[in-house]
Amino acid sequence: MSISRPKGTMDLLPPLARPGPLQSQAAFSRILHSAGQVLNRAGAQAIATPILESRQLAEHGVGQSSDIVLKEMFEVRYQGGHGDLILRPEGTASVVRAYLENGLKQLPAPLKLWTSGPMFRAENVQKGRLRQFHQIDYEVLGSDQPLADAEAIDLMWSVVQVLGLGQAHLKVGSVGDPADRERYRAYLRELLSPAQERLSPDSRRRLEVNPLRILDSKAPADQELLSELAPQNLLDFLGEEAREHLDAVTGYLDSWGVPYQLDPSIVRGLDYYQRTAWELHHGGIGAKSALGGGGRYDGLSELLGGKALSGVGWALGVERLLLALQEEQSLQEPELGSALYLGALTEAEQPAVLALARELRALGTTEFAYRPRPAATHQREALRRGARWLGLIGPEERGSGRVSLKDLASGERWETGAAQLAAQLGWAAGRDTSR
Amino acid sequence: MSISRPKGTMDLLPPLARPGPLQSQAAFSRILHSAGQVLNRAGAQAIATPILESRQLAEHGVGQSSDIVLKEMFEVRYQGGHGDLILRPEGTASVVRAYLENGLKQLPAPLKLWTSGPMFRAENVQKGRLRQFHQIDYEVLGSDQPLADAEAIDLMWSVVQVLGLGQAHLKVGSVGDPADRERYRAYLRELLSPAQERLSPDSRRRLEVNPLRILDSKAPADQELLSELAPQNLLDFLGEEAREHLDAVTGYLDSWGVPYQLDPSIVRGLDYYQRTAWELHHGGIGAKSALGGGGRYDGLSELLGGKALSGVGWALGVERLLLALQEEQSLQEPELGSALYLGALTEAEQPAVLALARELRALGTTEFAYRPRPAATHQREALRRGARWLGLIGPEERGSGRVSLKDLASGERWETGAAQLAAQLGWAAGRDTSR
Repeated sequence: MSISRPKGTMDLLPPLARPGPLQSQAAFSRILHSAGQVLNRAGAQAIATPILESRQLAEHGVGQSSDIVLKEMFEVRYQGGHGDLILRPEGTASVVRAYLENGLKQLPAPLKLWTSGPMFRAENVQKGRLRQFHQIDYEVLGSDQPLADAEAIDLMWSVVQVLGLGQAHLKVGSVGDPADRERYRAYLRELLSPAQERLSPDSRRRLEVNPLRILDSKAPADQELLSELAPQNLLDFLGEEAREHLDAVTGYLDSWGVPYQLDPSIVRGLDYYQRTAWELHHGGIGAKSALGGGGRYDGLSELLGGKALSGVGWALGVERLLLALQEEQSLQEPELGSALYLGALTEAEQPAVLALARELRALGTTEFAYRPRPAATHQREALRRGARWLGLIGPEERGSGRVSLKDLASGERWETGAAQLAAQLGWAAGRDTSR
Repeated sequence: MSISRPKGTMDLLPPLARPGPLQSQAAFSRILHSAGQVLNRAGAQAIATPILESRQLAEHGVGQSSDIVLKEMFEVRYQGGHGDLILRPEGTASVVRAYLENGLKQLPAPLKLWTSGPMFRAENVQKGRLRQFHQIDYEVLGSDQPLADAEAIDLMWSVVQVLGLGQAHLKVGSVGDPADRERYRAYLRELLSPAQERLSPDSRRRLEVNPLRILDSKAPADQELLSELAPQNLLDFLGEEAREHLDAVTGYLDSWGVPYQLDPSIVRGLDYYQRTAWELHHGGIGAKSALGGGGRYDGLSELLGGKALSGVGWALGVERLLLALQEEQSLQEPELGSALYLGALTEAEQPAVLALARELRALGTTEFAYRPRPAATHQREALRRGARWLGLIGPEERGSGRVSLKDLASGERWETGAAQLAAQLGWAAGRDTSR
């Protein structure tokens, strides 16, 4: 029995292998390229952070009492190692860590950054969840203005528009300022305490520490009690400043025609989240329908040992986008290649084939047959490889310095001088025809 | 004190941060883009494999007795995990595993694959070695022909040529067939056994198991004995078939004008390596001067539980290439951006600035000031961000639907209608100006 990849991980495969949506290297690249173009054009700077981070970063950046830290963290060990390493479970804490550690405060503020890469959580693979998944992260550091939040939401929306996802929808809310949440927590404790024996054990613990997390509970007992008591929303507890901030954000979205739904139920379990919070959903990808989410996290930098720093950003799940694209049947079939397949008819022409192929590769995708073969065999192989053009050199062509060319799409055939071949295929020097 | 990234890892930073060579996101991307273009144009298919792999894969694919497995492996654990996971230390075993597991044998053979990404080894960081480093891997599966080896070497050489590295040099050799190595091992045992008490303890152990690895030993005692006994090279023990294979490979390289040096001392510690083996070096990057290496590994598939499968490929170290580019002073300064920076002079023009920026971002990189400011302040900020163009809207421009434009490179100024702005900047619809 051969060795398998670990549970909850995927291989990305080339178009020729006819991969499913989660294994399509072409679709994966297209998503990253499109998102990168949207973000670059908005003046965001690409950065990359390591996959290994310290446990301390995850505990401060995701929250010590979160499921991610308590149950889903991958720990990394090595011989003689005291590094207390983990595989990063998300990107925001790493981006803020990199900002602080590399003195990016020196750069013009607000600074827009984006990154993409693998994230790791030891999720339940029985439910089809991935343990290595991929995110695109956009973060704006150094602005407390509602315009930064609105632009971030607009850019996230632009990414799914550019990808052609027609069924995505935004939910925008606010988690208020710390004092607002304190008032809301007091309200929830007062509401739920009399009925606390009906709460799940987990939620009974949460009642003192962080009653907001009870609202997210999946436990049937909790859900029943909540639907019975119908608590007010955090949005009803917003102070004047947080309310004005939210109104400004939605005002921008309205003026730009970015469609969204105001969602009073959005909460965040972590205390450094403040004010604007949003989610991007897609109806076609099941119960847990989020493509991604975002929010303002003005308190995070200080938790990581830095000075006060405003921040707002979002993450999109690449695999979630792939599923949504498949659902909308927008996963493009890779285009017919523009590749040339060269073959020799006898051993004597093989050197000419190799020399020509090496030359043409500076201009366009050129494959060659490793062995001389009859013309029909070369053509079959060229078709199997998805090539567009077949070029053959036999004894006759070699004598005259020519190539027999065939357009495999139209069936048209002609002869051309080897030196004119690139021009005949429309491959101009300096033009990138490979991507 | 703020939290730091783990030892032996790097952040990649944007050009504005003036990063060193190992932290330059732009240089890193340029290397991957250039290598990808060379490999795509040769008909290689891009794939990606997970960062997590099973310990079994690494043990079979790198060798149970190798330092990588014995001393440098990162183990990954999680709550309730029995997955026996590791972080991949190299790419070849993963690519062959993915080929076998995903049935890529169905695709036309030989199949050329390439991949790139992070690799992990718990190296000694005191010596400046990275624990997360990055490789570009090229692998050809399904051909035992010398032409596959020669093409692989040629493509590796093309990558460094395209990058502009003038001081790279190739060393090509052969590790022979298994029977050749058996004869060579017997010879080495016979030569070294009489003096075995002079060998280092490690090498005394190797004498029985794998005396070839003694040749790589850094221990002074071993080096002294070897220079005294001056053993013959493995190349002198090649059988007829391996010799013919090597001659065919070097024959192709000669005919193509790819410069190389025949290196009789190249050995590989692992038994599934066969015949051609090579290294790419660069004089400017210190004692351990390898940019990368490659070889034929016809025995690997069977070790991973697959059927017999010929394979040959190489890996280039991205950070090694970055150091070499810096050494040759070929690390290009990022070009002056083509970005437009838009600003409003008073609050009343801010909506017009935002609307125009959102529209222009479909065509080119457009930043906007989050707040209205005097013209001089906007200009200073545009320059700090490396923008090429400054566009201002004040009360006058708003009245006439125009924008005051300034070319920050030439100092030239003029007014233009907002609708004509993109054309004035040379941004045509549909053209990708962001990369």
